[in-house]
Amino acid sequence: MWEGEIVLLEALKREVLEANQALPKEGLVTLTWGNVSGIDREKNLVVIKPSGVPYDQLKIEDMVVVDLEGNVVEGKLKPSSDTPTHLVLYKHFQDIGGVVHTHSPYATSWAQAGKGIPALGTTHADYYYGTVPCTRPMTKAEILGEYELETGNVIIETFEKVNPNEIPSVLVHGHASFTWGKSAMKAIENAVVLEEVAKMGLWTIQLNNQVPPMDQSLLDKHYLRKHGAYAYYGQN
Amino acid sequence: MWEGEIVLLEALKREVLEANQALPKEGLVTLTWGNVSGIDREKNLVVIKPSGVPYDQLKIEDMVVVDLEGNVVEGKLKPSSDTPTHLVLYKHFQDIGGVVHTHSPYATSWAQAGKGIPALGTTHADYYYGTVPCTRPMTKAEILGEYELETGNVIIETFEKVNPNEIPSVLVHGHASFTWGKSAMKAIENAVVLEEVAKMGLWTIQLNNQVPPMDQSLLDKHYLRKHGAYAYYGQN
Amino acid sequence: MWEGEIVLLEALKREVLEANQALPKEGLVTLTWGNVSGIDREKNLVVIKPSGVPYDQLKIEDMVVVDLEGNVVEGKLKPSSDTPTHLVLYKHFQDIGGVVHTHSPYATSWAQAGKGIPALGTTHADYYYGTVPCTRPMTKAEILGEYELETGNVIIETFEKVNPNEIPSVLVHGHASFTWGKSAMKAIENAVVLEEVAKMGLWTIQLNNQVPPMDQSLLDKHYLRKHGAYAYYGQN
Amino acid sequence: MWEGEIVLLEALKREVLEANQALPKEGLVTLTWGNVSGIDREKNLVVIKPSGVPYDQLKIEDMVVVDLEGNVVEGKLKPSSDTPTHLVLYKHFQDIGGVVHTHSPYATSWAQAGKGIPALGTTHADYYYGTVPCTRPMTKAEILGEYELETGNVIIETFEKVNPNEIPSVLVHGHASFTWGKSAMKAIENAVVLEEVAKMGLWTIQLNNQVPPMDQSLLDKHYLRKHGAYAYYGQN
Repeated sequence: MWEGEIVLLEALKREVLEANQALPKEGLVTLTWGNVSGIDREKNLVVIKPSGVPYDQLKIEDMVVVDLEGNVVEGKLKPSSDTPTHLVLYKHFQDIGGVVHTHSPYATSWAQAGKGIPALGTTHADYYYGTVPCTRPMTKAEILGEYELETGNVIIETFEKVNPNEIPSVLVHGHASFTWGKSAMKAIENAVVLEEVAKMGLWTIQLNNQVPPMDQSLLDKHYLRKHGAYAYYGQN
Repeated sequence: MWEGEIVLLEALKREVLEANQALPKEGLVTLTWGNVSGIDREKNLVVIKPSGVPYDQLKIEDMVVVDLEGNVVEGKLKPSSDTPTHLVLYKHFQDIGGVVHTHSPYATSWAQAGKGIPALGTTHADYYYGTVPCTRPMTKAEILGEYELETGNVIIETFEKVNPNEIPSVLVHGHASFTWGKSAMKAIENAVVLEEVAKMGLWTIQLNNQVPPMDQSLLDKHYLRKHGAYAYYGQN
Repeated sequence: MWEGEIVLLEALKREVLEANQALPKEGLVTLTWGNVSGIDREKNLVVIKPSGVPYDQLKIEDMVVVDLEGNVVEGKLKPSSDTPTHLVLYKHFQDIGGVVHTHSPYATSWAQAGKGIPALGTTHADYYYGTVPCTRPMTKAEILGEYELETGNVIIETFEKVNPNEIPSVLVHGHASFTWGKSAMKAIENAVVLEEVAKMGLWTIQLNNQVPPMDQSLLDKHYLRKHGAYAYYGQN
Repeated sequence: MWEGEIVLLEALKREVLEANQALPKEGLVTLTWGNVSGIDREKNLVVIKPSGVPYDQLKIEDMVVVDLEGNVVEGKLKPSSDTPTHLVLYKHFQDIGGVVHTHSPYATSWAQAGKGIPALGTTHADYYYGTVPCTRPMTKAEILGEYELETGNVIIETFEKVNPNEIPSVLVHGHASFTWGKSAMKAIENAVVLEEVAKMGLWTIQLNNQVPPMDQSLLDKHYLRKHGAYAYYGQN
C-alpha cells in the first residue's frame, strides 16, 4: 500500500466519523440507534461505524473498512449490524457515496404507520421529487433469512420504478429510515430534511386530513430549481 | 458616494445580517431555509441574504444590495432566490422596512394544509388584527412563469382587502410563510409570533375542533391595546 | 422609612426579579408574554414586573412597587399592564404571596379551546385538587370596561365554589393562564406544573378521547400526600 | 464492617447518585418527579434517592440505604416516598439491579390513557419483547391502604404471565411508569427507550389509527438480535 492510498482512506474515515458524530448533533438519534457509512468507489471499499459504540466515544481508528461482500478489510471492531443493508444500497444505487440509517422519531413513526410521506409542500419538493416511499412488510422468510441483506433487497424492490437520486430516502416498514446522498455528509443533510418533512407531514394531516399531494407543477418547479441542469439556487 | 451614505448602508447591512443570524437562534429555520431583507426607503435599495449560504458563515460583506428591479448594486454573491418576492412586497406595502421568509415548521404546516390561521386568542390578537391568511394555490402559468415574482403577486392579491400593517404575515399555499414589519428585526419578532400562534392554533383545534374564532371585542381590545393611538402596553 | 423596611422590600424585589427571570429559564414564555408579582402582606404592597421589558434586561431597580389600588409607590417604569388582574387576586385570595401570568403554549391552548384541564393522573393530583377551571368568556361590557380589572373579577367568579389554595391556577377563556402560590417562586413552580399537566392532558386525550377523570380516591391520596396535616412527601 | 464492604456500598451509592442525576440530563423529569434506586443483592440492601431533594443538590452522602423491609440502615434523610414500590419490585423480580420511577410525559400520557404501549416497530422490539403493559386501576382499598406497597403489588400482578426481564417497564394506571434493569444505569437507559417508544407510538397512531401490532417474526428477530444466546448486536 503506497502513501497516497492511506491518505485517501483517512479522508473518508474522517468524513464518516464526522457524519456519525453529526447524528446526535442534529437530533437524529437516541442512544446508538443510527449509523453512517461512506464508499470509495474506486477501491470499492466502504467505511462504516462500529456496532453499538456511543457517538461521543467514536475515534477515527474505530471506523471499520469492509469490502462490498462485507469482509472486514481493516479495523478491530465489528461493523454495524446494518452493514449488509448499506452494501446492497451501494451495489444497486451507483451514484451514491454515503448512507445514513437512523430511527429519528417522526420518520420512524411514518415507517411504523406503514405509510410513505407524500409531497405536501415545497420544503419536500426542494429535496424529494415525489413521495418518500415505505417498503412492503418483509416476509417471514426474509426476516428469518439474511435479515439485514433482505432489508436492502426490499428497498431495491421499492425503487424499481423510482430514481434513488431523485428520492434519496426510504422508510422500511415497521422499522425506520435509510437515507443516502453523494457523500456521507450529504446523506446526513438529507436525513435532517427527511425528519423535518416527516414532522410537517404529520402536522399538516392533523390540520387537514383531506389534503391532496401538492400540485405537480409546483413540485417540478422546486425540485428542478435546486437540481439538474437548470438549477439556480445557491452560489453555483 | 460620500461618507454618510456608506455608513447608512452599513447600518442596514448589519441589521439584516443580525436578523438573518436570528433565524437559527430563534428556532425558525432548518438548514438554509429562510432569509431576511431590509430596505432603505430613501435610496430604494434592499439589503438581502445571499443564496444558500449557512447562517453561521454569513459576514457583513456577504450581504447583497439590490435595487427594486432586482439589479445587484453591490455584493459579490447571488442574492436569495426569493429576492423577487421580497421586492414585490416592498413595492406594494409602503410602510414595511423588513421581510422574513422562513419554513418554520408549524406555520409551514398550516401553509401545506392550505388554511389561514384564525385568531383564537389574545396572543394572536396582540400582533394580528384577524386571521393570518393563506394564499390561493398558484396557477400552472404562474409557477412556470416568473415564479418568485408571481409568489409576490399572489400575496398582494391576498391582501387586496387586508391591511398588511395589521396582518404582518401570510402563508403561501403549499409553500411557507412571509412576514414583515417596520424593520428587519421587527419582522423577525413577528415571525417568532407567527410560529407560536401556528403551534397553539394546532393544539387548540386538537382540543376543540369546533372552536369558533375569538370574540371580536376581545380581538379589538388586545390589538388596540398594543397598536395605534390608544396603545398602553410597554413603556411608551 | 427606617432601614429594616428597605431591606424587606429589597428581598421581595429580588425574589420577584428572580421569578421573572425564571419564566424564560423554565420555558414558560416567548418574547415578553408573562409577568410575576409578589406581595408584602404586612405593608399591603405589591412588587411587579415593568411592562414590556425583556427578561434579560431586567434589573432590581426596574421592579415597580404598587399599593392594592394600583398606585405606583416606587419605581420609574410603568407596571405590567396586567397589574389590575394581579391586585384583584391578592385582594380575594388572602393566603397567596405571588402571582404568575404567562402564555405558556400548552396551557394557553386549553384556554383558547375554552376548556378546563381535568385531573387525569397523579402528576395533576400532586398539585391540584381537581380540574383547573377555565373562566366563562368575558362579556363585551367587561372587555370594553376596565378590562384587566374585569379579568380579575371573572377569575374570582370562577372560584366562588373552588378553593384557590387547592387549585392554584386558572385559564382565562381565549387568553392564557394565571397561577399563584405562597410566594412568587412557588407560583413559578405551579406554573411549571400547569404547563406539564396541560401537555400531558392533550396527549392523553389524543390516546383515549373517552378517558374519564381520575378516580376520586387516587386524587385524594396524591393531593393529601403532599398537602395538609397528613402530608408525608419530602423532608418535612 | 470491614473496609471492602464500605467501598462496595460507596460504588453503588455513586452509581445511584449518577443515575438520579441522569434523569434531568436525559429529559426524563420535571421538578423532582422521579427517583432511581439500586440493590446490592449479596447484602440485600437498597440505595435510593431521598424524598423531594432537587437533582442538582444531591450529594453522595444524601443517598439513603434501606433494607428490603424498608428500614433505613444508613442516611440522615427520608427515602423517596415511592420506596415501598421499589422494594416490592426487587423482591419479586430477582434478576433486576436497578429501578427508575419517573413521570416522563409521553409514557405518563399512556398511563393516564390507561393503555399499554403496543410493539409497533423495531425500536420497541430491540428492548421490549411485546407490549409494555398498563396495570388495572387500583381499588379504593388499595389506595387507602398501604398505597405505595400496593402499587408494587399491582405491578407484580400485571407481570404474572409476563417476564420482567423481557419487558423491563410498566405503566401504572393513572399514574406514571416504573422501569428496571440489570443495574441503575441500565434502568435509566430503558427509561429513555420507554419515553421514545411512547412518543413514536402516539405519532404512529395519529398517522394510522388502524395500525396493527408489528409482525411477530420481526419482533422475535429484533429482540433476539440484541438479547439472549444468539445476540449479535454490539461488540460482545
